[in-house]
Amino acid sequence: MNAPLPDHVLPAHPHRPVPPAMLAALRERFGARCSTAAGIREQHGRGESFYDAAPPEAVVFCESTEDVVAVVKLAAANAVPVIPFGVGTSLEGHLLALQGGVSLDLSRMDRVLHIHADDLTATVQAGVTREQLNRELKDAGLFFPIDPGANATLGGMAATRASGTNAVRYGTMRENVLGLTVVNASGELMHTGTRAKKSSAGYDLTRLFVGSEGTLGVMTEVTLKLYPLPEAVSAAICHFPSIDAAVRTTIQTIQMGVPIARCELLDANAIRAVNAYSKLGLREAPMLLMEFHGSEAGVKEQAETVQALARDHGGEDFQWARTPEERTKLWTARHQAYFAALQTRPGCRSQSSDTCVPISRLAESINASVEEADASGIPYWIVGHVGDGNFHLTYLMDPNDPAELAAAEALNVKMVRRALALEGTCTGEHGVGLHKMGYLLEEAGAPAVAAMRAIKRALDPQNIMNPGKVFSFD
Amino acid sequence: MNAPLPDHVLPAHPHRPVPPAMLAALRERFGARCSTAAGIREQHGRGESFYDAAPPEAVVFCESTEDVVAVVKLAAANAVPVIPFGVGTSLEGHLLALQGGVSLDLSRMDRVLHIHADDLTATVQAGVTREQLNRELKDAGLFFPIDPGANATLGGMAATRASGTNAVRYGTMRENVLGLTVVNASGELMHTGTRAKKSSAGYDLTRLFVGSEGTLGVMTEVTLKLYPLPEAVSAAICHFPSIDAAVRTTIQTIQMGVPIARCELLDANAIRAVNAYSKLGLREAPMLLMEFHGSEAGVKEQAETVQALARDHGGEDFQWARTPEERTKLWTARHQAYFAALQTRPGCRSQSSDTCVPISRLAESINASVEEADASGIPYWIVGHVGDGNFHLTYLMDPNDPAELAAAEALNVKMVRRALALEGTCTGEHGVGLHKMGYLLEEAGAPAVAAMRAIKRALDPQNIMNPGKVFSFD
Repeated sequence: MNAPLPDHVLPAHPHRPVPPAMLAALRERFGARCSTAAGIREQHGRGESFYDAAPPEAVVFCESTEDVVAVVKLAAANAVPVIPFGVGTSLEGHLLALQGGVSLDLSRMDRVLHIHADDLTATVQAGVTREQLNRELKDAGLFFPIDPGANATLGGMAATRASGTNAVRYGTMRENVLGLTVVNASGELMHTGTRAKKSSAGYDLTRLFVGSEGTLGVMTEVTLKLYPLPEAVSAAICHFPSIDAAVRTTIQTIQMGVPIARCELLDANAIRAVNAYSKLGLREAPMLLMEFHGSEAGVKEQAETVQALARDHGGEDFQWARTPEERTKLWTARHQAYFAALQTRPGCRSQSSDTCVPISRLAESINASVEEADASGIPYWIVGHVGDGNFHLTYLMDPNDPAELAAAEALNVKMVRRALALEGTCTGEHGVGLHKMGYLLEEAGAPAVAAMRAIKRALDPQNIMNPGKVFSFD
Repeated sequence: MNAPLPDHVLPAHPHRPVPPAMLAALRERFGARCSTAAGIREQHGRGESFYDAAPPEAVVFCESTEDVVAVVKLAAANAVPVIPFGVGTSLEGHLLALQGGVSLDLSRMDRVLHIHADDLTATVQAGVTREQLNRELKDAGLFFPIDPGANATLGGMAATRASGTNAVRYGTMRENVLGLTVVNASGELMHTGTRAKKSSAGYDLTRLFVGSEGTLGVMTEVTLKLYPLPEAVSAAICHFPSIDAAVRTTIQTIQMGVPIARCELLDANAIRAVNAYSKLGLREAPMLLMEFHGSEAGVKEQAETVQALARDHGGEDFQWARTPEERTKLWTARHQAYFAALQTRPGCRSQSSDTCVPISRLAESINASVEEADASGIPYWIVGHVGDGNFHLTYLMDPNDPAELAAAEALNVKMVRRALALEGTCTGEHGVGLHKMGYLLEEAGAPAVAAMRAIKRALDPQNIMNPGKVFSFD
């Protein structure tokens, strides 16, 4: 069984240099859009993971699918790695150029190509961010719900099978991508899926590429499901005497089938950080931050049900955010929790767990993790998409204290093994990247990982597509 | 571009005989559960498709995953095809033993292994049928919504990515399978997915196997999402002056985001057949059969919205099926439409189209098809899961009239090409099987089909898993 990698050491990989003739060809085609400047390379060789940067040899700023085809054809001819890059919000080391190669910056592929309001679908270039898409959808009375917190690109979100706060009602990228344009490992264009809502036409290549973390091809266009803006939206917060009480309220809400749109947990540590950063003045006790979508009557019905459940668990009365401005303030604070928490221990290195378990096992999963975290003495904070059984416990570690790093890693391993024993997964939404390769093997088992590897080798025999991620190629 | 296969000629395939030693080994292990009787073989070499039977050399009645492992290990060692068989309701020739081999009858694998009511999940053996599962769920106040009409097995439904009447609200097998136990092509056990609601752990093997039509491995256990039985359920029928009016009512219902649970179209021909078969006395005019799920207030709200839309399109007042008995009568009639229609032209050969288009293109898709069908003079009938943009136009052909067979096939080709031009799919829910291999190539394009083929060859290099279906191996 693979041991999880220590969190601060990069695995050894062969360097696969970009031949001078290939670099010359890139420069000829892309001019200043092909950069080898140290700062640009450095910025593209990391994400928001705790790893040191592993810079690519060159960065190409693509503006079209044809640009991507051109780079991948050159890379394929020269067996050089290509690593797709959106806006760099990956948490799991997906963007590190472990074997060198070319980073494909897709952030300039930012056109919303089609909005089919009548069919509730949109097709976007991979570099469109979720906030941009929602701005462009607003006038049509539509929205795209998947919200991982960061203002990530839709290509990046598809690549990691992202989800976030709205997934409890609307599903994840798995459920909300209808089709893709992909440049495959030989630089050929491929289309998957259609705009029809369902299909039984052959293997589900769309779902295979969603969550493949750039290892099977480069997604350049994404066709998405949209939703009508709900007639009524209400957000509320509710404080609880303990994390357990908040979690049990959540479990019952889900078990009763309440179609709650968002159900987020923040522990007292997270609220303390958010208060300091966003000046919110929230009570520093475990809290659920909830949102209800529907008709006026439906929202009222949902809220009443959840209020009754919360009361049974010692929850205080709901405080409602009645205006869009109040709602935005609360959700902005939630989304800034990550940066807010980092500032509570200057110079720290952080690492978020991402386990997800069946909802009935969530209390067990989270309570034991909190107990261990408290006993460790290492600063930590928790936020959770608890309606999905998913939470992030983030240790804030002193990078110069090897004992603390090792202790946090050991606790992470325990957390993951507990989630697997509870029939859950090591990653609900961040992806495997580097750090969870060992966990994936424990979770899926050797035959399933062997099947993934066989697929990778069949579709990318030279291993040029974001090599070194998810599982070992050999 | 592949021409679609003529509908009554089987493609030529090499026969791959079961060696006598392998047959002896099967007999030794399985005794009477391994049959080579002509009647049994014949029954297992067809489905409900229009093809003549292509019987396997032997049928093994499996009772456990270990049984399946044993057969596949022998098949792998002897390069002999294996074809999974549930209850034989496939419409697309999936069950034909084109190259001989062994049919794996999974219908005795009919145990519901776990019902996790608290997590809204169940794990079943592949031979459990949907009606059986729903009987076993009833006392827990839960149900599994996917309903393709036939009382198919859940393994078979997963294999074809089935959907049916409830998909408009609850999704298809794509959205409702959480995990699988699979016996791969070398006879090894594999697990995919977990019971967690979401995961970003590696390639989505679950979704790859769902819809792979038995060509990548044998699914022996399926973990499914469940839903609480709705507090309120109402069914209603409404007649319209034309198919177009019924379809436009549907389109607006979906575009307004009404969470209708079922929205089925029957044309006058289908109603005539159903009336004759089930003695229902329904008016023989285009009709929507609808069902609403939710709270009492929610159902009322939905029904009022749809009634107003129907009225705008000349729909008559809703007739409500208020009791569970009345509802069951209507849905049973809908589900018997297939057999009812067959009886209207004794000795006929039938073939259902299965196109699915974005909802805004449905009127265009269906109206043109009706016009062509009327002009052809060939008897036909239509039912449709119109809320999803999916309908079945079924020609009832005289098998002894080659001109009629050819005319119907030509109209099918037109229907499919029209759906593809409207950004839809050749098959919403029946699968590719044999007849749609050419359509798949037109729909997905050569690079995507090449990727499917590469995956197949990587996971089943001897091509023993249900060979000859979906696309050509070579």
